[in-house]
Amino acid sequence: MNTWGTIFRLTSFGESHGTAVGGIIDGCPSNIFIDADFIQSELDRRRPGQSDLTTSRKESDRVEFLSGIYEGKATGTPIAFMVRNNDQHSSDYNDLKDVFRPSHADYTYYMKYGHRDHRGGGRSSARETLSRVVAGAIAKTILQEQGIHITAYTSQIGSIRLEKPYAELDFSSIEKTPVRCPDLETAERMIELVREVQSAGDSIGGVITCVCKGVPAGLGNPVFGKLNAALANAMMSINAAKGFDYGMGFEGVHGRGAEVNDLFYRTESGTIGFRSNHSGGIQGGITNGEDIYFRVAFKPVATLLQSQPAIDKEGRETVTKITGRHDPCVLPRAVPVVEAMAAMTILDELLKDHSMQNPFSPY
Amino acid sequence: MNTWGTIFRLTSFGESHGTAVGGIIDGCPSNIFIDADFIQSELDRRRPGQSDLTTSRKESDRVEFLSGIYEGKATGTPIAFMVRNNDQHSSDYNDLKDVFRPSHADYTYYMKYGHRDHRGGGRSSARETLSRVVAGAIAKTILQEQGIHITAYTSQIGSIRLEKPYAELDFSSIEKTPVRCPDLETAERMIELVREVQSAGDSIGGVITCVCKGVPAGLGNPVFGKLNAALANAMMSINAAKGFDYGMGFEGVHGRGAEVNDLFYRTESGTIGFRSNHSGGIQGGITNGEDIYFRVAFKPVATLLQSQPAIDKEGRETVTKITGRHDPCVLPRAVPVVEAMAAMTILDELLKDHSMQNPFSPY
Amino acid sequence: MNTWGTIFRLTSFGESHGTAVGGIIDGCPSNIFIDADFIQSELDRRRPGQSDLTTSRKESDRVEFLSGIYEGKATGTPIAFMVRNNDQHSSDYNDLKDVFRPSHADYTYYMKYGHRDHRGGGRSSARETLSRVVAGAIAKTILQEQGIHITAYTSQIGSIRLEKPYAELDFSSIEKTPVRCPDLETAERMIELVREVQSAGDSIGGVITCVCKGVPAGLGNPVFGKLNAALANAMMSINAAKGFDYGMGFEGVHGRGAEVNDLFYRTESGTIGFRSNHSGGIQGGITNGEDIYFRVAFKPVATLLQSQPAIDKEGRETVTKITGRHDPCVLPRAVPVVEAMAAMTILDELLKDHSMQNPFSPY
Amino acid sequence: MNTWGTIFRLTSFGESHGTAVGGIIDGCPSNIFIDADFIQSELDRRRPGQSDLTTSRKESDRVEFLSGIYEGKATGTPIAFMVRNNDQHSSDYNDLKDVFRPSHADYTYYMKYGHRDHRGGGRSSARETLSRVVAGAIAKTILQEQGIHITAYTSQIGSIRLEKPYAELDFSSIEKTPVRCPDLETAERMIELVREVQSAGDSIGGVITCVCKGVPAGLGNPVFGKLNAALANAMMSINAAKGFDYGMGFEGVHGRGAEVNDLFYRTESGTIGFRSNHSGGIQGGITNGEDIYFRVAFKPVATLLQSQPAIDKEGRETVTKITGRHDPCVLPRAVPVVEAMAAMTILDELLKDHSMQNPFSPY
Repeated sequence: MNTWGTIFRLTSFGESHGTAVGGIIDGCPSNIFIDADFIQSELDRRRPGQSDLTTSRKESDRVEFLSGIYEGKATGTPIAFMVRNNDQHSSDYNDLKDVFRPSHADYTYYMKYGHRDHRGGGRSSARETLSRVVAGAIAKTILQEQGIHITAYTSQIGSIRLEKPYAELDFSSIEKTPVRCPDLETAERMIELVREVQSAGDSIGGVITCVCKGVPAGLGNPVFGKLNAALANAMMSINAAKGFDYGMGFEGVHGRGAEVNDLFYRTESGTIGFRSNHSGGIQGGITNGEDIYFRVAFKPVATLLQSQPAIDKEGRETVTKITGRHDPCVLPRAVPVVEAMAAMTILDELLKDHSMQNPFSPY
Repeated sequence: MNTWGTIFRLTSFGESHGTAVGGIIDGCPSNIFIDADFIQSELDRRRPGQSDLTTSRKESDRVEFLSGIYEGKATGTPIAFMVRNNDQHSSDYNDLKDVFRPSHADYTYYMKYGHRDHRGGGRSSARETLSRVVAGAIAKTILQEQGIHITAYTSQIGSIRLEKPYAELDFSSIEKTPVRCPDLETAERMIELVREVQSAGDSIGGVITCVCKGVPAGLGNPVFGKLNAALANAMMSINAAKGFDYGMGFEGVHGRGAEVNDLFYRTESGTIGFRSNHSGGIQGGITNGEDIYFRVAFKPVATLLQSQPAIDKEGRETVTKITGRHDPCVLPRAVPVVEAMAAMTILDELLKDHSMQNPFSPY
Repeated sequence: MNTWGTIFRLTSFGESHGTAVGGIIDGCPSNIFIDADFIQSELDRRRPGQSDLTTSRKESDRVEFLSGIYEGKATGTPIAFMVRNNDQHSSDYNDLKDVFRPSHADYTYYMKYGHRDHRGGGRSSARETLSRVVAGAIAKTILQEQGIHITAYTSQIGSIRLEKPYAELDFSSIEKTPVRCPDLETAERMIELVREVQSAGDSIGGVITCVCKGVPAGLGNPVFGKLNAALANAMMSINAAKGFDYGMGFEGVHGRGAEVNDLFYRTESGTIGFRSNHSGGIQGGITNGEDIYFRVAFKPVATLLQSQPAIDKEGRETVTKITGRHDPCVLPRAVPVVEAMAAMTILDELLKDHSMQNPFSPY
Repeated sequence: MNTWGTIFRLTSFGESHGTAVGGIIDGCPSNIFIDADFIQSELDRRRPGQSDLTTSRKESDRVEFLSGIYEGKATGTPIAFMVRNNDQHSSDYNDLKDVFRPSHADYTYYMKYGHRDHRGGGRSSARETLSRVVAGAIAKTILQEQGIHITAYTSQIGSIRLEKPYAELDFSSIEKTPVRCPDLETAERMIELVREVQSAGDSIGGVITCVCKGVPAGLGNPVFGKLNAALANAMMSINAAKGFDYGMGFEGVHGRGAEVNDLFYRTESGTIGFRSNHSGGIQGGITNGEDIYFRVAFKPVATLLQSQPAIDKEGRETVTKITGRHDPCVLPRAVPVVEAMAAMTILDELLKDHSMQNPFSPY
């Protein structure tokens, strides 16, 4: 449904061309300072129209908080928020009223609900991710105070792939280019590719990599509560996501156990260290204290600014004529969404862990 | 935690070397015929010792049902079941009592729970998946009556990869070889590779592909309830899983929208058809009636039959000396587990859908 | 937390003197007609200032819908709504800033959250029940189409008790008096009592009776999912509720089995009938098709318009000086809230039942 | 369904005349000592045949643990347990095969599930409460280490009512009589009444009072998460429960606010004290640190050892001829069940509170 999380929970609402989008955050610890400026700056990273590589839809995306905050702090009660939709251009969609776009949720929503909200894809629009970014920003604030830092970046667009491992990258460069790839040379090639795709009225996919530093050992749960399963679920719930892997992931199948096992060693200070991190910070579903890293694959967006054969509600063949405003590549704007879902997942786990652990034992 | 599902729910229990493993299935529709022979045959596909490529642990794995079945049918009340552990060889693990195996859940469980059940990995052992196979077999029975068929197979071991798409394979060959790869020539090469790895006391990973045929359009939910997110969560909860993708998945990032969009057409009978299925049967989180297919990547098992540098509970460096019985490659025995989790996920969605849909509307 | 329900779910937000109160309804069947006028008329029954027996706080309580409705019908996506707070008079509460009112949530919230939102009781205010009335009105609309009708009325205020059983009452008289008691003679005595209590700056409690007609047999679940347990939970979540019983309830302990068992008989048309309904329509947690009826006890509201000894945050003794606007008796305004929670509970059960039942069996 | 709780969870299984009854406890803190003797002693308080006032069904009710315990301590993984059914006498029920007993779950289960497990009421039998007593005993052990003590007793049978408030009772007398009423003179009269009812083949109901001492302030949650709502839900899920109230409850409606408000005062040591406890330890759904006390009303059991008019599956009128073994009064054996559900509810709340509170703030 539309609620995510166990302790730290987000219930999301809103359609692309309805009155507003927003949500309710429940389970936010009380007395946490709510940094409205930081939340807005995260929303701005997701906002349409931030560069010429994204849709030209103009939304100021100013968030209004309706409850749960008093004198700048979370009270522990639900934090409701909303962003009104301004620049809707619903008329752009009139031609789509009875047409199903190929590879789009148009058709499947119609099959499920038996009706059509054709304006901007209704609930299936990526505009919904706005509510995740607000909740994620609050989660990030809490995690940062615990020394946990979450960073995502674009590591592949089409066949242009950033080959360097994350440890060799300068994360401070991520925001320097509109594609959010920290390697500036690779970023340039990505930008060129996106421009070319954009001018053809086409679209292109890619991969986002995310790194979580500072996560303590012992988070996550056995069996169905594995942290990697929770992360996979969170990431695959993002629009256009087609794949998830963590640690050595799909590449890891080429190696043998003796090569890819992460060996322990005793550090000089007597603590336990790891000689490698093919595990991606998670073993048996539970964190080992090393960096968590994972990848999310995104498909090319389905809606194209070119005509495609389509079908209407009566099953007649037709063509799409799309004059709306669409991103040729969702990756740059999906980066803050991936970070938000990662932050929410890890915070929720951290809050669960406080209760699941033995709170009474001297251990 | 240890409960999976919303309507059709499995709560699992048991450790590798405890008294028994098993579970409780809640939400099974009443009056369903429970086919004990089929359930046992599915367990036999997961059973250790079924070929010389798997662990030599000998378990008959006979399931005992404790409740919820009367005169051969589900009553609608909880179905409890268990399999007693027989061939435990706990003494094999004495050397491991204070040692953490590299890349294993040993260390992370200790960090989480503050104690050690060293015998066979305790709850982190893949023996837990037995309960999933029982619940999955019941789910499969129900789905088959609805015309839904779920088939998984080994599509890659190490670098040996089955290149043919699933549509060109003869699924009836899957059970003909111990690696469960339907292409017999590829299977031979896989078997050779596993033998080589086995004789070196090493381990190897791979990829399982799963295909779900006959799933009706309209299953799954928007936003956080996407069917692909539920499948990702289910698959990543399986031991040793490192990655998940569906449809064109990670490969799909190379194409452009105009190439990979699945175009509609009007069939001769006037219904809606799809010219391709890059979507993998799911658009916007909801099924479109086409085949669902996805891949799951598995790492090489961490426990090796060779010495590895390790660390003990006091942080001293040591080496592992493992004399237990272990699979060099989990893929063949993971095939029925992947099928089970897929069946449970789709059945749960089907049951949810019956309630979420408008049950009152004439539509 | 702040989410209620399994399939039909309400997540509620808002404080008495914050920006707005409202909620998100998830799981509403699609294509249901949303009757805005009926929803508003239900809100008006709960609205402050509707008679001289209630608080004089003036709120128009106009509901604004933000999502989930298109062309007058539910789309199946989340229905978000809010009511802005207008007549807040937060200054009335300045004297309360550091004072805990006796028998009020002031003190317990402070113990839980470590902070104080003193304005109007914040989240503990009965103003929160507004969101329940909106969701309940939608639930009622759906139930009415299924022939299910839910009616609550005031059956006791202080020691003035309506002795007639519900079957002898004319429900069309409920709205004729400000106390919502259908027996006009008893209502007059109740009104007199409330006036007397009001002029003394005191408060008084009572009992609301609720009757649900037309509920089909077979709703509810065994063990922890009993319908009576769900109703008890729903009713006890209403502010100031102190007790719940159904059927013969607390009175039933005086009878013996042979007296109070509800005997079956064969009706003239050959169906099964019941000679009595001491069960209150529920046996073993599951409905039997007879009327469901239950009672909810409410305490006198804690906030009095008279001085009471109190304590401040530093533990110093003081007195409350309350000049706000408060109801001397919550019963009349709680009637629509009881109905709303009953409607939501029965609808949620009805939707669950569609999935829990054997949807595949010919039975 | 058959799962109870949020963090500390019990999933229950089993029918009265099936193979076994039992459950899985999930979320039990690790490293807790599991006191098998205490668990067994609690089961013995619920066991049939413990006095001549209860059913003569003979069950040793020895619990077998299947997982989750290692070297006497909880490992943090699921604790599965079962009790095999021995003395089943299913043949006692042959006459009931097609007959619905009046006021029993026979009929409603049939309406829900479309089939009949007539042996001992199947899942609707009070034998299911056995699993609650096991989980409750573990919860009690944990609570006792926190200084929280839960005690229930029979306060009314038929019209014989213990008038003394709980503070004047000697709880150590509860186990001295088979009716579990701590006032020995009242107990004698209750015993006499039950004997009379028993010899008439009839049944009788009553009220159980429960007191929870030592619960810290701040437990429970606002709105839908009120502790009183959770307690009501837990208690009403017990077989034959018809009513619940807490604090002054249904009696409280006679008083006015100025009489029943619990006034604060400053204790000699400077802390906050309460002059009365009409609130029953809960205000606004959250504990205030005073004793929690509540009542649960139970109806006379429906199954009588006398013939009653009944109806069969074909709707023909018949009479019940019951030769099974049944309690004339469930109260004495329900006392440990009430305690168990109270212990589970408060422990679950305590574990949730550890996560919901601000775990990061210095407060």
